[in-house]
Amino acid sequence: MNAVDVIAKKRDGGELSRAEIDLFVHGYARDEIPDYQAAAWAMAVFLNGMTRQETIDLTMSMAASGETLDLHDVAPIVVDKHSTGGVGDKTTIAVAPWVAACGLPVGKMSGRGLGFSGGTLDKLEAIPGFRTSLDIEQFKAQLARVGVVVAGQTQQLAPADGKLYALRDVTATVPSLPLIASSVMSKKIAAGADAIVLDVKVGRGAFMKTLEEAEALARIMVEIGQGVGRRVSAVISDMNQPLGHAVGNALETVEALETLRGRGPADFYEHCLVIAEQMLLLGSRASDLREARSQLEDALESGRAFEKALEWIAAQGGDVALLNGESYGLRAAPVVCELRAPRSAVVSGIDAMQVGLAAVDLGAGRHKKGDPVDHAVGIVLKAKVGDHVQAGAPLLTVHANSAAHCSRACQRLLGAYSWAEDDVSAAPLIYKVIG
Amino acid sequence: MNAVDVIAKKRDGGELSRAEIDLFVHGYARDEIPDYQAAAWAMAVFLNGMTRQETIDLTMSMAASGETLDLHDVAPIVVDKHSTGGVGDKTTIAVAPWVAACGLPVGKMSGRGLGFSGGTLDKLEAIPGFRTSLDIEQFKAQLARVGVVVAGQTQQLAPADGKLYALRDVTATVPSLPLIASSVMSKKIAAGADAIVLDVKVGRGAFMKTLEEAEALARIMVEIGQGVGRRVSAVISDMNQPLGHAVGNALETVEALETLRGRGPADFYEHCLVIAEQMLLLGSRASDLREARSQLEDALESGRAFEKALEWIAAQGGDVALLNGESYGLRAAPVVCELRAPRSAVVSGIDAMQVGLAAVDLGAGRHKKGDPVDHAVGIVLKAKVGDHVQAGAPLLTVHANSAAHCSRACQRLLGAYSWAEDDVSAAPLIYKVIG
Repeated sequence: MNAVDVIAKKRDGGELSRAEIDLFVHGYARDEIPDYQAAAWAMAVFLNGMTRQETIDLTMSMAASGETLDLHDVAPIVVDKHSTGGVGDKTTIAVAPWVAACGLPVGKMSGRGLGFSGGTLDKLEAIPGFRTSLDIEQFKAQLARVGVVVAGQTQQLAPADGKLYALRDVTATVPSLPLIASSVMSKKIAAGADAIVLDVKVGRGAFMKTLEEAEALARIMVEIGQGVGRRVSAVISDMNQPLGHAVGNALETVEALETLRGRGPADFYEHCLVIAEQMLLLGSRASDLREARSQLEDALESGRAFEKALEWIAAQGGDVALLNGESYGLRAAPVVCELRAPRSAVVSGIDAMQVGLAAVDLGAGRHKKGDPVDHAVGIVLKAKVGDHVQAGAPLLTVHANSAAHCSRACQRLLGAYSWAEDDVSAAPLIYKVIG
Repeated sequence: MNAVDVIAKKRDGGELSRAEIDLFVHGYARDEIPDYQAAAWAMAVFLNGMTRQETIDLTMSMAASGETLDLHDVAPIVVDKHSTGGVGDKTTIAVAPWVAACGLPVGKMSGRGLGFSGGTLDKLEAIPGFRTSLDIEQFKAQLARVGVVVAGQTQQLAPADGKLYALRDVTATVPSLPLIASSVMSKKIAAGADAIVLDVKVGRGAFMKTLEEAEALARIMVEIGQGVGRRVSAVISDMNQPLGHAVGNALETVEALETLRGRGPADFYEHCLVIAEQMLLLGSRASDLREARSQLEDALESGRAFEKALEWIAAQGGDVALLNGESYGLRAAPVVCELRAPRSAVVSGIDAMQVGLAAVDLGAGRHKKGDPVDHAVGIVLKAKVGDHVQAGAPLLTVHANSAAHCSRACQRLLGAYSWAEDDVSAAPLIYKVIG
């Protein structure tokens, strides 16, 4: 068996053994297998799929390709969360300190935005001074001291995944269920958390477009994690319209912090509660959902959740003086314009992907890896699905670098809306919890 | 549209336009598109196929990626032939001078052996001094002066194909109908022949295992050629057992020359006649098969065919003094052993691929591109399918570098034979002519 044999076997629909997967994954991580062979293999996997066992083997092979963190010297249980990516998804920034404020340590390695989908690290870096690049010792020390840490993935964890993910991005092999599942879970397993809550997004602004696909992805990820002794549950949540109101780095960070002060959008607040509840359950801090919710409400109302957020941000070097007042001192975009409703009607849809792409065009996201992002620009929705609006009422504001950017964004964003005459109810926020 | 978009379109089963194919093929030829993107694309083509129009567009795009020869200043019609590759296929060495001896110029760019399949250039290089590397001016000059030339493909012709072929070899994307058809035809079209006879092999020792596959390949190649104004026909011929008796470079060259002296194996002689007839028909040197055959028989019996072969070989620097006597002076292998029939029975099959692989193991062929070949070693069959043999009678001789090589080859080759008690007839030599 050599690399060509492994490619040919997958090309012909065969099931790869753990030894064959290891040969390929570790050979690729060690630069013994070239990019072009990995690319052909990834396309064969994309088109022919992988069995459950192959997906588990691929995950474990990638997790074993580098260092594996053990956090048990920090705390008996550390909890992590992961979102499959969406538009307006600033959940981590709210739930990580919120759960930590309930006494459960949260240690998370996070990612950057790409394409229509935003990234937590970019959002946090809207806070001047915030450091996302921590080494493993710093990560563990902060987790022990503050109880919450969110940093960029280190090169030492699952390096095979890092290499393969970069390759998939430029070879049209990203949206593949076994490749997504193994990529997510190899990193999560290597990063050492005992309990992992997966937020699997479904809809127009997500990689998974149908509930069926999302459920299949959620199930295989839960199986993989449980198969190696981690506590894992998956929340399947809606990503047809953006989550919350804000889309754009600083705007989202502010919205997440506002939510911890009890002033967040209703849908985002509820979404965070569901994710945080699952984290408390898996982390054995609550015995049922009611108890979890009551702890969370208490942490919020008492101000402890927001205080923990400031403590966390300060620990990572962020300038909390800018965040502590009634308004926030993050850099603002020079031009703000308003898109107004073209008619009196009910909003029946806001295409999250279009909103995400409009934000990328404004400079909030990346067309390709390594592009810089503008933290100030973005979009704030004023009306969401189900809302009745009068002609001329504000639909959203665009925060941009120029009037030309503003008007281009408004034009695109107008096309993201669909309308109805009668009452419309939004898609459910949460479809299912699997665990 | 960028490279990733083109890959994604083919991945999702879309039909690529000529502009999209040009973007990819010319970008790849100019090193603007990296190997890994071409590899992912090739696997997507392998698994999702290509329409007739895409295959034609790919062919023309690759042909247009470099220089295109025009041979009309040499002769009004130049004929070429191409085999899809097999075991014991020394047809070019016999038919090129034979057809030239009938007054029709033959100009052919040829290839090297890889895996179980031999290559004409390797066989010709068994003749001391024979030069296969000619530039375009030398190629045309010899074609004008001698009427026959067989040389290696120059770098200037269809460079995109050369690059893609090398990549396919290491990414398990070789046996794909549209990729094979476009690879063959792009080179043939760029090489300038007006008339092209394709010898499409089918069976155990061919890339196409079934008649259906072979016919599909033959039809698309004929369509491509005719679509750009070339005269093309395809002969579908058997490659279940090796063609003729000899397998190995010098052994095959001698057998081809012996055939031009009327002393070749019956099956190989007949196969050459069929290919040569098609060449004369397409080249307008004969108006029907009977006339073509009579011209060919005349050229052979008069000695003109063999003389033309010597003239051609001398023109390319080959030492014809070694070839001109009753025996041939090419370098012989140090050890020759005989495999004898294990029982009295009828030979019902000789697996051509096993024979080809045994020859590669002896050193006659290549495991990978760039490996050296040993011109002296090989196999000579003494019995073929349908022959009745007595126990102990010779089945074949092995020409090797050591007794150990001999005995290993004999063991493998014994397994290539299958046996029957009753009369067996061999598969037809020729299944079909398409044109």
